[in-house]
Amino acid sequence: MQQKSPLRIGIAGLGTVGIGTLETLERNAEIIAARCGREIIVTAVSARDAQKDRGVDLSGITFHTDPLALVQDNRVDVIVEVMGGSEGPARALVEAAITAGKPVVTANKALLAKHGKQLAESAEKKKVPIAFECAVAGGIPVIKVLREGLAANRITRITGILNATCNVILTTMRDQQRELGDVMEEAAKLGLLEADPSLDIDGIDASHKISLLAALAFGTAPALDHVYCEGIRNVSLRDMQYAEKLGYVIKLLAIASAETLEVKTPIKITQRVHPCLVPKRSRIGQVSGAFNAVALEGDACGYQLFEGLGGGKGPTASAILGDVMDIADGTSYPPFTVPSSALKSAEYVSMQTLSFAYYLRVAVNDRAGILADVTQLLKEENISIRTFLQEEHRAEDAAELVITTHTAGEAAMQRAVAKIEALPAVQGKPTLIRIEAL
Amino acid sequence: MQQKSPLRIGIAGLGTVGIGTLETLERNAEIIAARCGREIIVTAVSARDAQKDRGVDLSGITFHTDPLALVQDNRVDVIVEVMGGSEGPARALVEAAITAGKPVVTANKALLAKHGKQLAESAEKKKVPIAFECAVAGGIPVIKVLREGLAANRITRITGILNATCNVILTTMRDQQRELGDVMEEAAKLGLLEADPSLDIDGIDASHKISLLAALAFGTAPALDHVYCEGIRNVSLRDMQYAEKLGYVIKLLAIASAETLEVKTPIKITQRVHPCLVPKRSRIGQVSGAFNAVALEGDACGYQLFEGLGGGKGPTASAILGDVMDIADGTSYPPFTVPSSALKSAEYVSMQTLSFAYYLRVAVNDRAGILADVTQLLKEENISIRTFLQEEHRAEDAAELVITTHTAGEAAMQRAVAKIEALPAVQGKPTLIRIEAL
Repeated sequence: MQQKSPLRIGIAGLGTVGIGTLETLERNAEIIAARCGREIIVTAVSARDAQKDRGVDLSGITFHTDPLALVQDNRVDVIVEVMGGSEGPARALVEAAITAGKPVVTANKALLAKHGKQLAESAEKKKVPIAFECAVAGGIPVIKVLREGLAANRITRITGILNATCNVILTTMRDQQRELGDVMEEAAKLGLLEADPSLDIDGIDASHKISLLAALAFGTAPALDHVYCEGIRNVSLRDMQYAEKLGYVIKLLAIASAETLEVKTPIKITQRVHPCLVPKRSRIGQVSGAFNAVALEGDACGYQLFEGLGGGKGPTASAILGDVMDIADGTSYPPFTVPSSALKSAEYVSMQTLSFAYYLRVAVNDRAGILADVTQLLKEENISIRTFLQEEHRAEDAAELVITTHTAGEAAMQRAVAKIEALPAVQGKPTLIRIEAL
Repeated sequence: MQQKSPLRIGIAGLGTVGIGTLETLERNAEIIAARCGREIIVTAVSARDAQKDRGVDLSGITFHTDPLALVQDNRVDVIVEVMGGSEGPARALVEAAITAGKPVVTANKALLAKHGKQLAESAEKKKVPIAFECAVAGGIPVIKVLREGLAANRITRITGILNATCNVILTTMRDQQRELGDVMEEAAKLGLLEADPSLDIDGIDASHKISLLAALAFGTAPALDHVYCEGIRNVSLRDMQYAEKLGYVIKLLAIASAETLEVKTPIKITQRVHPCLVPKRSRIGQVSGAFNAVALEGDACGYQLFEGLGGGKGPTASAILGDVMDIADGTSYPPFTVPSSALKSAEYVSMQTLSFAYYLRVAVNDRAGILADVTQLLKEENISIRTFLQEEHRAEDAAELVITTHTAGEAAMQRAVAKIEALPAVQGKPTLIRIEAL
C-alpha cells in the first residue's frame, strides 16, 4: 500500500511542540502512514544543546545545532519550524527553506503576521508550501476550515479566544476570586508563563493570530499594524465580580470583521484584541481555562463555533502533523489561500470610529454630587446609561460607581472617561471595558 | 490568474440543497474562483419537472429530466447528487458517474452508509473522488476535519447531535412545554417534517451519519447494521420536566467510540443513537434548535467541539461547494480516507454488554409497598439508586416514581424494567433513558 517513498521531516526546535511532534509521530506512525499512503519519518532535528535529555529517543535522527543545516541536509524533505521568534534564526531558516524549495510547516505566528506577505511571495515563486495550522488555536484545524471547508463562504466575522494563557488567568481569577498579579505570580512560579509574559498578557500573541485568520477569511495580506491591541493587565478581580453580578464574564477576545465583501472593491476591515464583558451563558462566555474557541460567521454556513485546547504538546503536534500529512498528500495552497498577487487591498477601520456598549467602573470619594457630575459628563457626550450600580462603601468616604452604557462612540466614550478621571472626587483611573453581546 | 479551465458541475436534484448550491455559487462566484484558481460553473441540472418555478434563473443551464443524462453530458465534469434515497435513481446515478470517471459530490448519507464500501471500491478502481461533506452535520466541515485536520490522531470517541429535526423538536418541547405529538403535528403543518418523519424521529438518519463518521475516525467501512438505534418517540414532556429538575436536558445523541485502537488488531467499536439525559450546563446540552454539534476526542488533540447549523440552504451549499472546490484543486482522498483494501476489520460491541447510568420513570397506583417492590427488583439486579423522586399525586391513587441509577449493566437494567413493568401496581411501560455525563 505504501508505494511512495517516506516523507522525511526535519524539526527545528525541541521545546514542547517539537517533542510533542516527535512523540505523536512515533505513537501514531502506522495510522499516519495508512491515512496518507506513505510513511512520515523524522530524519533530523536541530536545537542548541545536543546533550540535554529531552525524554525522547533521538537515536537514528541527525542532530544539528544549526537550524540552517536542516535545509542543507539532503535527508530532509520538509522543515518543521517550531523555534519561534519573528526575526533571527527562525526567519532565516524559513527563508532558506523556501530558497531551497523545501516545504515549511511552522508554528510561528509572529513571523507570519509580520512577514507573511513577503514570505508568501517568495514561497509562490518557488512553488513551496508554507503551512501554519499550529500557529492559531492550537489543535483546532481552523486554518484548514477557513481555507478549504468554508472556502465557498464570504466570512463576515471571526470572534476568538486565541490566547490560552490569558484565558487560564482570567478563568483562575474568576474561579478562585484572586487578583491578576497574584495569579500571574503563581503561574510564573509554575513555569506556565513566558519569561516575558507581555506577548500573552498584552494581547500581542492574540493580535498575531487574529491578523492571520483575518487574512485567510478576507483574502487580504496580514495587517498586524492595523490590529487594535489591549491586553488584560487592567482587569481586576472587582471588575470580574461586578461583571458576574451583571450577568457577564470577562474574556480576552480577538475579533475581525469585514464590513463589505465585494471582491473587486477594497473592503473595510476591523481587527481588535481587548478584554470584553460577554454574557455568562453565551457559548464564548463558557469557554474556560486552556481552551481556545473560534466563532465564524459566513454568508452561507451561518454561525459556526470551534472549540479545543489552545496549546500543549498533543494539540500542537496534531496541527503540525495534519499539515505535514497534507504535504505528503501533495495538497498545497498559497499561504493565504489566494496567490499574493490576488490579495485584496483593504481599508482598516480605526477603533475611534467604532461604537460599543461599555462597562465603566469609577472609584470616588463619596461626596455629594459626584454621581450628578459623572452622569452629566456622559450626557454631554450623548452616552446613555443602561444600568447603574453603586457599591456599598468600601472605606469611609469612598464608593464605587459601576455603569454600563448603551452603544456609544468609542471616541466620545474616551473623551468622557478623560473628563471623569479629571474630576477631583475621582480616585485613580476609571476602568473601561467594552461589552460584546455575541 | 485563472488560467485553468472552469470546472463544470451538473446538479441532480433541485430541492433546497440543489437550489442553495446554485444560489451560493452565483453569489460568491468571484471569491470561489479566486480561492481555487479557476471558475466553477453549473452547466446542467436534473429534476423531474422542467416547468416548475424554483425562484432561480436557469437560463444557459441544460435541464435534464433524467439524472443519468448528466453523466452522458460532456459539458459536465462533476456530478453533485442531492436527490437522496439509498436506492433507485440516486444510487444509479452515483454508480454511473463512477463508471464514467466523473467525480461525485453527494449529500446522500443513506446511500453511503448502506453501500459505502462497495462504492468506495469502484471509485478507487476508477480513481474517482466521492466527497460527502454535506452528508453529515450540515455546514460543519467535520468530514474534512476528521480526514485531514485531525488525521494524525487516534480518535477514540465521537459524540454528536446530528439530526437537526430532532433537536428542534426536543428544544421546542422544552422551551414551550409541549408534548412531542403536538410539536410534530405543528412541524408537519409548517412543512418542516418529511412526509415520513420516521427517518428523523426514529434515529435512522442519525445512525447513517454516525456510521460514516465512525468509518472515517476509526478507519473501518461504515457498519450501519451495527448501530444501536432508538429514536425520540418515547420522550415525553414529563421526562423533560423531571430531567430539568435533576439538572439535565434530553438530547438525541449519536455516539461512536473505539475501545482499542491498535492498527493491526481488530478494534472494538460501539455505535449508538438514542435519547440521553445530558447535563444542562454541558457544552452538548446547550446545543439547541437547528444546530448540530460534533465533539471529538483524539489522543493528541484532546477534546474538540464543532457547532453549526445542521441543514438548510446555505449550510448545505457551503459544504457541497467546499467539496467541489477541493475537486477543482485536485485534492482527493479515498472516500473513507484509507484505500478500501486497508479498511480495518472491527468487532462491534453489543448494547447489551454496555453499562450506563439510567433515568427511569414508573407510573404507579399509589399503593402501599410499590416503592419497596420496585427498589427490590433493582436490588436483585445489583442496580444501585442514585436519586429518587416521587411526584405529588397526579390523580387519586396515582403517583410517579422517578429514579436515577448509578452505572449498571444494560442487560440487567432491561431485565429489571421488564419485571417492574409486570408489577400489578405499575401503569403502562416505564420510561428508561440513558444518562451521559459528557
